[in-house]
Amino acid sequence: MTSAYTSRHIGPDQKETAAMLAAVGQPDLEALISAALPAAVGRDNSDTVPEIGEPLSEADAQAKLRGYAEANTVLRAFYGQGFSDTLTPPVIRRGVLEDPGWYTAYTPYQPEISQGRLEALLNFQTMVSELTGLPVANASLLDEATSVAEAVGLMARAQRKGTRVLLDSRLHPQVLAVAAERARALALEVEVGDATAPLVGEGWAGSVIAYPGTEGDLVDPRGAIEEMHGRGGLVTLACDLLALQLTESPATLGADIAVGSSQRFGVPLFYGGPHAGFMSVTDKLKRKMPGRLVGVSKDAAGMPAYRLALQTREQHIRRERATSNICTAQALLAVTASMYAVYHGAEGLKAIAGDVHARAVAFAAAIEAAEDATVRHADFFDTVTVEVPGRAHAVTDALAEAGYLVRPLDDDAVAVSFGESATIADVAVLADAFGAPSPRDGAGDGAEGAGTAAGADATSASIPESLRRTTPTLEHPIFRSIHSETQMMRYLRRLSDKDLALDRTMIPLGSCTMKLNPAAGMEAISWPGFANVHPYTPARFTPGWKALIDELTGWLVDITGYAAVSLQPNSGSMGELAGLLAIRRYHVSRGDHERDICLVPSSAHGTNAASAALAHLKVVVVDSAEDGSIDVEDLKAKLDKHGEHVAAIMITYPSTHGVFEENVTHVCDLVHGVGGQVYIDGANMNALSGIARPGRFGGDVSHLNLHKTFSIPHGGGGPGVGPIGVAEHLVDFLPTDPTTAGVGPAAVDEGVPMVGTLFGSAGVLPISWAYLAMSGTQGLRRNSAHAILAANYVAEELHGSFPVLYTGPSGLVAHECILDLRELTDASGVTAADVCKRLVDYGFHAPTLAFPVAGTLMVEPTESEDLGELDRFITAMRSIRAEIQEIIDGKVSHEESVLAQAPFTAAAVGADEWPHPFTRRQAAWPVDSLYRDKYFPPVRRIDEAYGDRHLVCSCPPPEAFDVSGDEDAEA
Amino acid sequence: MTSAYTSRHIGPDQKETAAMLAAVGQPDLEALISAALPAAVGRDNSDTVPEIGEPLSEADAQAKLRGYAEANTVLRAFYGQGFSDTLTPPVIRRGVLEDPGWYTAYTPYQPEISQGRLEALLNFQTMVSELTGLPVANASLLDEATSVAEAVGLMARAQRKGTRVLLDSRLHPQVLAVAAERARALALEVEVGDATAPLVGEGWAGSVIAYPGTEGDLVDPRGAIEEMHGRGGLVTLACDLLALQLTESPATLGADIAVGSSQRFGVPLFYGGPHAGFMSVTDKLKRKMPGRLVGVSKDAAGMPAYRLALQTREQHIRRERATSNICTAQALLAVTASMYAVYHGAEGLKAIAGDVHARAVAFAAAIEAAEDATVRHADFFDTVTVEVPGRAHAVTDALAEAGYLVRPLDDDAVAVSFGESATIADVAVLADAFGAPSPRDGAGDGAEGAGTAAGADATSASIPESLRRTTPTLEHPIFRSIHSETQMMRYLRRLSDKDLALDRTMIPLGSCTMKLNPAAGMEAISWPGFANVHPYTPARFTPGWKALIDELTGWLVDITGYAAVSLQPNSGSMGELAGLLAIRRYHVSRGDHERDICLVPSSAHGTNAASAALAHLKVVVVDSAEDGSIDVEDLKAKLDKHGEHVAAIMITYPSTHGVFEENVTHVCDLVHGVGGQVYIDGANMNALSGIARPGRFGGDVSHLNLHKTFSIPHGGGGPGVGPIGVAEHLVDFLPTDPTTAGVGPAAVDEGVPMVGTLFGSAGVLPISWAYLAMSGTQGLRRNSAHAILAANYVAEELHGSFPVLYTGPSGLVAHECILDLRELTDASGVTAADVCKRLVDYGFHAPTLAFPVAGTLMVEPTESEDLGELDRFITAMRSIRAEIQEIIDGKVSHEESVLAQAPFTAAAVGADEWPHPFTRRQAAWPVDSLYRDKYFPPVRRIDEAYGDRHLVCSCPPPEAFDVSGDEDAEA
Repeated sequence: MTSAYTSRHIGPDQKETAAMLAAVGQPDLEALISAALPAAVGRDNSDTVPEIGEPLSEADAQAKLRGYAEANTVLRAFYGQGFSDTLTPPVIRRGVLEDPGWYTAYTPYQPEISQGRLEALLNFQTMVSELTGLPVANASLLDEATSVAEAVGLMARAQRKGTRVLLDSRLHPQVLAVAAERARALALEVEVGDATAPLVGEGWAGSVIAYPGTEGDLVDPRGAIEEMHGRGGLVTLACDLLALQLTESPATLGADIAVGSSQRFGVPLFYGGPHAGFMSVTDKLKRKMPGRLVGVSKDAAGMPAYRLALQTREQHIRRERATSNICTAQALLAVTASMYAVYHGAEGLKAIAGDVHARAVAFAAAIEAAEDATVRHADFFDTVTVEVPGRAHAVTDALAEAGYLVRPLDDDAVAVSFGESATIADVAVLADAFGAPSPRDGAGDGAEGAGTAAGADATSASIPESLRRTTPTLEHPIFRSIHSETQMMRYLRRLSDKDLALDRTMIPLGSCTMKLNPAAGMEAISWPGFANVHPYTPARFTPGWKALIDELTGWLVDITGYAAVSLQPNSGSMGELAGLLAIRRYHVSRGDHERDICLVPSSAHGTNAASAALAHLKVVVVDSAEDGSIDVEDLKAKLDKHGEHVAAIMITYPSTHGVFEENVTHVCDLVHGVGGQVYIDGANMNALSGIARPGRFGGDVSHLNLHKTFSIPHGGGGPGVGPIGVAEHLVDFLPTDPTTAGVGPAAVDEGVPMVGTLFGSAGVLPISWAYLAMSGTQGLRRNSAHAILAANYVAEELHGSFPVLYTGPSGLVAHECILDLRELTDASGVTAADVCKRLVDYGFHAPTLAFPVAGTLMVEPTESEDLGELDRFITAMRSIRAEIQEIIDGKVSHEESVLAQAPFTAAAVGADEWPHPFTRRQAAWPVDSLYRDKYFPPVRRIDEAYGDRHLVCSCPPPEAFDVSGDEDAEA
Repeated sequence: MTSAYTSRHIGPDQKETAAMLAAVGQPDLEALISAALPAAVGRDNSDTVPEIGEPLSEADAQAKLRGYAEANTVLRAFYGQGFSDTLTPPVIRRGVLEDPGWYTAYTPYQPEISQGRLEALLNFQTMVSELTGLPVANASLLDEATSVAEAVGLMARAQRKGTRVLLDSRLHPQVLAVAAERARALALEVEVGDATAPLVGEGWAGSVIAYPGTEGDLVDPRGAIEEMHGRGGLVTLACDLLALQLTESPATLGADIAVGSSQRFGVPLFYGGPHAGFMSVTDKLKRKMPGRLVGVSKDAAGMPAYRLALQTREQHIRRERATSNICTAQALLAVTASMYAVYHGAEGLKAIAGDVHARAVAFAAAIEAAEDATVRHADFFDTVTVEVPGRAHAVTDALAEAGYLVRPLDDDAVAVSFGESATIADVAVLADAFGAPSPRDGAGDGAEGAGTAAGADATSASIPESLRRTTPTLEHPIFRSIHSETQMMRYLRRLSDKDLALDRTMIPLGSCTMKLNPAAGMEAISWPGFANVHPYTPARFTPGWKALIDELTGWLVDITGYAAVSLQPNSGSMGELAGLLAIRRYHVSRGDHERDICLVPSSAHGTNAASAALAHLKVVVVDSAEDGSIDVEDLKAKLDKHGEHVAAIMITYPSTHGVFEENVTHVCDLVHGVGGQVYIDGANMNALSGIARPGRFGGDVSHLNLHKTFSIPHGGGGPGVGPIGVAEHLVDFLPTDPTTAGVGPAAVDEGVPMVGTLFGSAGVLPISWAYLAMSGTQGLRRNSAHAILAANYVAEELHGSFPVLYTGPSGLVAHECILDLRELTDASGVTAADVCKRLVDYGFHAPTLAFPVAGTLMVEPTESEDLGELDRFITAMRSIRAEIQEIIDGKVSHEESVLAQAPFTAAAVGADEWPHPFTRRQAAWPVDSLYRDKYFPPVRRIDEAYGDRHLVCSCPPPEAFDVSGDEDAEA
């Protein structure tokens, strides 16, 4: 029986389902599954059905989630270590984190329908660039730890000669652990030490200096930077965006790269993530920078328009030559942080920083007056390290009981880190715990808090003269234009209105699974018992998190058929890397040091190969057969050739060609036969969940995408969550807690420290928990079956217009289908990209373009789209096919056609002059239903090449948007 | 110093404020206040400044609110009495109650920019109409109690001969109290008794029969209805929308009117409100029905379009001939309830009702097996009354300790009422408390809950054969078309996208104060500790509510300068009525039985006179002088003439003419001089808060509009909250708790039972609490000053284009200004309504039209609009003035002008034919900024008269919207 929730999650109701089954010629869903899946994969259902149990209703699931949230004790966070107390303005929480218009959006690859979020991300880049002083910033990275890892990689690429990397021992422990591990995987020579001390020897790629250090200490890095530059290396500063309000910019200090986390700009602690990392670089390094970069270009009417710059780097990550596997970033969190900066503005941020610093100064002053405690570092921004020999844990425990979380560095020292909500009353409580007198009345009390400059007077107190900021902070007008809540509410609405997200239309993106993100799960992530918990809160205060994570992990184990699952990877690409590192370490642990080859089918997502490269595996490509499946003969040849050097094969199942390959178990057997491991990419798990388990049909490792299959929203390009499941023999090689893992070579045997905290993007896990709890065992299977049904329905209805490239032996596709446009392109000149742009005029987000096969579109409808919406898409595609026919028939040239000119803005179709051979109605309302519900993109087609040639990656001045008289220029 | 929050609440920043002050020729805000306000009103600031204290930050205010919410114990609600346990689907909570697009909207008087909410309200009407079987339903009333009161009034109006009204003693006590009180105020003869028993005597206006009764009992009312009809009276059934899934429709039973509450359709308990009452009537009664009515008409292009029907009834409530003072309704809650019905659909609602009934049946069966307990009524839907002689309170208390709230009827009986979330486990706990065995395994357990029909099998168990539903329930396709969460999310977005609300534009509505609704306060209303508390929860479980309400009440006392404040009235009109009843009772208590005249200035809002009529006072109109102020000579003449018959004068301050009248204290003195009371309408308190207090400058009573001045959103036409403040001598006549007040004549001396629960719309009070807590003493004054500044800035900038009708002696207006279009209308034919429609093309909601002076527009910008938005409005108005000039100059006729044709849809400006003398650009983009941000209304100008002639008040069939080929018909 279908649960109440499952009937809400699945788009088609009973009647619609029957109609769709009839269209694809299947009597029922189970028959469809049997027909589509190879027997070997779907075999033994009784065993392959996961046992999540009976589904909960939305109300019961939320009640259980509330119980978990309430079981956590929210300690006031004075812990620091990269995670700071901050206040999310309610207007931003409601308008971004809780607004489907923002959170259900996809990565802005289709720029015409993404101008709103592109503007927000450009604000983020402008903010990072202006605060660090470095000219080019990207649109976020996964977290601070991986940002440092990426910076190390970037330095090594830029300085080809050097292979030595110096990591500052003053970096946060988890940052150090991750960066060291990742650098070693790249065969760099890692040294950990005081990065501001004199250098020894040559051969440097560069260094990463903490600014400030994990104990809060501020050290002037100028000398160290100069020396490193003198020896040919580059320097990265790991910095703090709030500290940068008061401390000199990395650029002024001479740094080449600045990285860090933007969490404390209004993003909840979220038990460790998701938070947006950032990176900015010198002009010289900009084209080597990893991650997404929003750039400014122009549209067909000549107006400024945003799009992802240098996309070729990402979309075509060059398999074995990949330099980063960063794909999903933290868009939603970057947007949140950027809006926080827009809302507070330059003066507001300085005031907040001033207040924070004043509290720290007041606390330090109180400690100075204590008998048994001393301040370790005189120079600091927000974190004061107190030496209390032998008493560190006692003080920490006592404060925890009082509701305060501070950080014991060891037995003898405690770091106390101040954040935005800290008050002078907090200072008194904290000081008292160290046996210090209360601070002087009014000391460090900025009274009204944010928005005032009261605290700023105390600015200089503990920041050394040489490090006080002399350069301006936020100068772009966007940081001065939105000061009221009404303005912010409207700005957020105006931006999201420009975009198409799931809350307005189907997003039929192959390999991306843009399904429903249940409000019942989304609501929970804002609850204080989840959102406001610091990741290093002692376990005894977080039983709710533990219970939720254990339960979710158990379900994922069950769904995948593996022995264990780690939730640590905070994106699919991190999952891949973690999985491959586990494989590599497994081989090494058995003495198989020679296994360094990773087989990757030609149809694989580029990230696969990139991850292999980052895991220091050599990529060998296996060909596809005529029918799209893996060419078994070629595979055998490669296995014969590389034999004992084969570490693994990475396959995707169902394949990226959108079919359940018949030979998958055979492929697995062959690879196992030569001692290799099988990595099954879980990108397409939405076709398998509840039906078949990769851990049972041949996989040794898989990563899942909780943001695809398990209902976490895409957030406009992140957060992602990429847990990995592994078979029994690989369990010991799962990621461990990077705060406890060492950073020396010994760490190899202790697992793979990967990301910032043990649970990665913990903050969004309640969404997947809710999805699974409400779906239950049967619901999951039903969702997958419906995903397969929807794809087959679309394939059936459209194959007459656009050939479906691959199908399985039964003539069925899996949960997505590839529409082949190449013959039509040859006949008409209309490209698959033209079709994507034209779909905008029909109110649709485009399917996946040119992946995995150039000249095609891959359509994945998901189970959440109802028949009406599927038919709306089919009608649009058929109408477009007719438009193409007009060109083929010679009625209009491609250049002048509605397809080449698409998409059309309202200003274009309402312009006084109409230069086109087609009518306005044909342009904007080609089907009647558009008169009821019409989306207009804010810009015409964007000139991608122009933007890459003229790379501009921060906000243009307002004058650039002057439209007077220009709206007719488009003709 | 301005608090952090105040600087967010106020639109203009320091620089903008300086520019605006310069424009109006005032050195600073205090000087502006002094210049605008009469000395006598603003005198003695030290005394008139309320003492709310230091403002809290958003975070601190939310922390305090969380403390209050957590101090309340949420008992599982099995209490009933008109308030039932229900589950709000998260997608609806997030998409309606928490979405600014819905909650910041205004009442849909401007239909072209309100099609979304009008459709939702039409769904509500269709739902009520189909469930009750009566053809015409309105778009909500304030609650069940006042709905019954309105029904009584309607019956009396329809049956002019009869003056006797029979109220069923089986109605809920608060309903009985309110309805009896209100009926008596209308001079009806009220009898309370068994309304299904044989009638005695003649002269009946009608009866109200409970269906089911407050004890849950179901009685067939057919005989009683027939008998009443035979004696010339009408019959109202007070019914339950969920019960109607299983019980016969009121229409089939013969009723003329059906009323009730729609709360249990997904609207949180909210500690008693806001909840939408409903009313449906026979065709014969439709034009006499009170409340707003959404109707279907057509637009200038001939397409179906919605608007409020028969608006003349409301907009021009005929002073002394008023039949209802209903104005604000419960739009946001009606939308919520309607979406709940749309989402569950006919089958889903039946299943929920079946499950609820099955639980009640299982419970009753268990009780039957108990030794010391018996079931009082064999026929019931959801409520079982158990007789436990002498033990009722003991059982109730024991269950409360176990977390269950049931209703002790007296010492000997307990009513147990089942709601949507009740499970068979709950039945066991409840039965056990009565000493009954647990129900048989599986009995009454509908397993999967909503969406299944499992429970429906038990349907008939305790519903008498004659009352089982034979007629269909929800038949319109809208109740079958949206079954998935994705569909609902998109439907909600699609509807709100059609509308203009505060989240996109300034809404410069004079007398309506469309200011910011702070997210920090809005968030709190969803918290379970507020939202899920049943209004009759014993006080010991609700200390949080008590603290919040006490604090808020204290602040309002302070702000108004009165001796006491009651939060009970749940709309401004209810506040007026409560205030006037207090005055009437005061006079009566002193033996002044003759005082039955209420003086109302000619400029007063129609509601004032309507409320007076409902309080059984005769309205005498006082003229306005040339300058718009009260004509003191005329007042003196009226006072001379009516002297000791004068009960009160109702004035608004600042006046509805938008000025601070100089003579207000003199007017108060004159009325007091003849023994009358002064009612100061608080509609314009946003010009006074923190500056002057009506209780100090002459008022005896005032109502406030928390949804205007105190930041509760308008919700698209409700909820409203209209607390009243009274001077010391009136304190005893404030509304009391209607559940404890009697219904006999003795109740007169016990206060004025007015609405459903003691605290009216308690659920939204956290918003006003937050607004006040975050504003603090100084913030309030500053907000008012900025409201005055903004109005004066607009007046100053626009008076050259449109004369400002009234100003004070200093040449200043108060917080709003009236733009006089009458001369321009004479010269050009362009009406004020044309200007309103044309403003839509500029992206604005219209100002208040034709109130208080026909042919004018009243503009109230509020303090929350920044200078940029004010200037955008000024630019639009000046541009419109230039468009008018073209007509005056003879360049275009009025009929053919852009003004007469406005507004323009996207389909119109993109139509292939363009029949107008102006360009498309002039139509849709008359100013360049519209190219950056353009709103298109979904329909052209709506034909109001057509809709009233062809009154259709439920959803049209989908075919009505067929657009094929019709988009050119508009020319």
